[in-house]
Amino acid sequence: MTARLSSVLEKIDGDMPQALDRLSELLRIPSISTDPAHKADVDRAADWLVAELAGLGFAARKDKTAGHPMVIAEGGAATGPHLLFYGHYDVQPVDPLDLWDSPPFEPRLEETPAGKVIRARGASDDKGQLMTFVEACRAWLSVHGNLPVKVTFCLEGEEESGSPSLVPYLEANRDALKADLALICDTGLFDAQTPAITTMLRGLLGEEIIIHGPARDLHSGSFGGAAMNPARVLARILADLHDDQGRVTLPGFYDDVPEISEEIRAQWEALGFDAQAFLGAVGLEHPAGETGRTALEMIWSRPTCEINGMNSGYTGAGFKTVLPARASAKVSFRLVGSQDPHKLRAAFRDFVRARVPADCRVEFLEHGASRASVMETSHPAFEAARQALSDEWPKPAAFVGAGGSIPIAGYFKTILGMDSMLIGFAKDDDQIHSPNEKYDLDSFLRGIRSWARILDAVSKV
Amino acid sequence: MTARLSSVLEKIDGDMPQALDRLSELLRIPSISTDPAHKADVDRAADWLVAELAGLGFAARKDKTAGHPMVIAEGGAATGPHLLFYGHYDVQPVDPLDLWDSPPFEPRLEETPAGKVIRARGASDDKGQLMTFVEACRAWLSVHGNLPVKVTFCLEGEEESGSPSLVPYLEANRDALKADLALICDTGLFDAQTPAITTMLRGLLGEEIIIHGPARDLHSGSFGGAAMNPARVLARILADLHDDQGRVTLPGFYDDVPEISEEIRAQWEALGFDAQAFLGAVGLEHPAGETGRTALEMIWSRPTCEINGMNSGYTGAGFKTVLPARASAKVSFRLVGSQDPHKLRAAFRDFVRARVPADCRVEFLEHGASRASVMETSHPAFEAARQALSDEWPKPAAFVGAGGSIPIAGYFKTILGMDSMLIGFAKDDDQIHSPNEKYDLDSFLRGIRSWARILDAVSKV
Repeated sequence: MTARLSSVLEKIDGDMPQALDRLSELLRIPSISTDPAHKADVDRAADWLVAELAGLGFAARKDKTAGHPMVIAEGGAATGPHLLFYGHYDVQPVDPLDLWDSPPFEPRLEETPAGKVIRARGASDDKGQLMTFVEACRAWLSVHGNLPVKVTFCLEGEEESGSPSLVPYLEANRDALKADLALICDTGLFDAQTPAITTMLRGLLGEEIIIHGPARDLHSGSFGGAAMNPARVLARILADLHDDQGRVTLPGFYDDVPEISEEIRAQWEALGFDAQAFLGAVGLEHPAGETGRTALEMIWSRPTCEINGMNSGYTGAGFKTVLPARASAKVSFRLVGSQDPHKLRAAFRDFVRARVPADCRVEFLEHGASRASVMETSHPAFEAARQALSDEWPKPAAFVGAGGSIPIAGYFKTILGMDSMLIGFAKDDDQIHSPNEKYDLDSFLRGIRSWARILDAVSKV
Repeated sequence: MTARLSSVLEKIDGDMPQALDRLSELLRIPSISTDPAHKADVDRAADWLVAELAGLGFAARKDKTAGHPMVIAEGGAATGPHLLFYGHYDVQPVDPLDLWDSPPFEPRLEETPAGKVIRARGASDDKGQLMTFVEACRAWLSVHGNLPVKVTFCLEGEEESGSPSLVPYLEANRDALKADLALICDTGLFDAQTPAITTMLRGLLGEEIIIHGPARDLHSGSFGGAAMNPARVLARILADLHDDQGRVTLPGFYDDVPEISEEIRAQWEALGFDAQAFLGAVGLEHPAGETGRTALEMIWSRPTCEINGMNSGYTGAGFKTVLPARASAKVSFRLVGSQDPHKLRAAFRDFVRARVPADCRVEFLEHGASRASVMETSHPAFEAARQALSDEWPKPAAFVGAGGSIPIAGYFKTILGMDSMLIGFAKDDDQIHSPNEKYDLDSFLRGIRSWARILDAVSKV
């Protein structure tokens, strides 16, 4: 290791308590982007980041969009590779609040059997992750007065609510944002010891359907039997979405779904993924997707359809013999290969409409659409970063797939003509999108150190 | 008409403004029995009734039960027929509150195209109805100093929450409550001009099922495809409950369901029930139950299965890509003939369990069970009451069925060995159990007058 790098790593190690304080400050801001009640909080998180990055010497600003603002900051070396760093400062809603062991926006350091963690909404997704890169930059700047590369930050405030303003923003700012390579920090480790560069991401199609039946809630005694029950209609539609082999039944759903290559299959098998441990950690035992597929295939390379929410009639304590006026569900599809979310949205709506009887009508709400992404790993920075990560962690880094959807990688490619390197340090048990979200201090520290190494390595390619 | 009766009817007509004030007072008490937060309000409604009946000279008291109290009041003639009057002073919950045009517990008199109404939760079900009998007694007592019959009031506070204390109470008070005949005021008119004595009532079986899947809500990207989604399991179970002919698929469900006699079928056809108008009033057009049955059969003589509520995952504004840890539904069955609710509860639970896959478990909550009732109309009071009602209303009274479940009639028969006469003045558009519940002033006034006539007629049989 060069002295240039080792001095930065030493600075990082010594600065951990302050880095945690800064992360905690950001975590205290309840920047829930999907909830209009938190609009001012999202804005406050953006202001906090602008102040932080400006304090490090970046030319930092908050760019307006039709929704939540974009935080942009430019700095670093005048020459050499130009990297665009992406993260998001908005977070998921916190309900059900009663399942949290401590308030979601009062970050706490906790000892766990697997080590120290910081617990709060957004600790892992994505505030803890984006701060790993900020802190790596801070250490470089502090020790050497500058970064070894040119860096532009692009921090989004709408990732958890479908990124409605992202595409217009990228299209309007093509020239300013185009760099040699994008770094995206919103993914996970392969396991606690094995870092990962994610090269396959699933796309996402989100839809909400509302079945309207009677003009008002009815007494199920006075009307039950004679009046159409929209909850029954909805249940039938949702049940019809899968066959008994766990396959999605939308016509044409699998048309654009490729099989993974034998090479990738061999790589994945070599990872020794422990499906039992993966499911066991959340109280499950059996892979529940398509018959005949491994759990890793199910989450990395196969498309899915999931019910994310369902609501109708009386759901409080006790019983109410109501025949509901409406029933609604939120449904999402994870997409792979070249599945077209717009084509599938149309197919889904046709599928639903064909099952809505006389006396009911259906209303659709659109909640985002993005294609799957497959990265071009031939860029030399991929191998440089893989080596840098392997130097930091107990086990060598792997190129992996991911079940989640990070549409930004696709947009960087199609709108800015730029490849993306997805590197993150989240663990499977971080409980992102769930109560009691946390981020391991090991992820945070090694994450910062990893970026310091990657900046060093990429500056030399 | 005798002078004895006409003087009572005149008193009733003159006393209407005061009667409406008294009803409004009772309606202002939010006695929602199913919601523990309203326990004190339910008790307050009981106290109000005790004071009211004591003020009329009845020996009135509030009897404790394991749940909400029973209001008991005794009075009237020392000899002659003894009638037990039943009504309930608890009301349904009010949600969704945002669909009410005015606060549910601030009763309002309103002009509508069909005449004046009083609007509030419980106006029709059952406070307005039970007050018709109280006011009829008041007029008799005011004019004649006594009633022409002996009367015992039995007013329940748990009818809208499954009547858990009713059977133990009746069993413990058999001797005090046994009368010659019960009067139950919790049913409706056949139409705005035609009064009805309800002689067939459906039973009710209420069940809540909770499907538990993963130990916590999961990210649908990280786990979707591999982890079992309990909302999908629930949708499948609910969809399976009906076949495509609208029949309930529980094994043995129709075993104890009789066909109605040709005589009853002819009577019902003669009523000229307008199914289009009945459904049209709630924005529907097509009878949705079993193929080949008339709408009147569907609600009066056929059993049903309805989903009353459904809840899973994220149901707030926006979208959350969560894979829910649990999914729940409230389901009720309306029963006819000799269907056994306990046998069917077991059949339902078997049906559900058979559809719960590995990695999910099901929890059941019990919400009441009552058999259907068919009244013995040979008691001479039935014909006397039919005639009295026919004298009051524009069209002759009819013996009808009812889709709702009033288990009390069955209990009076099995526990107290007493027949029941079900007479009420609610209209189909009263929106009971729904937002904007109302009671027509015509129902209220003619209801009071009807009871005054019935007391007169029954005292002579």
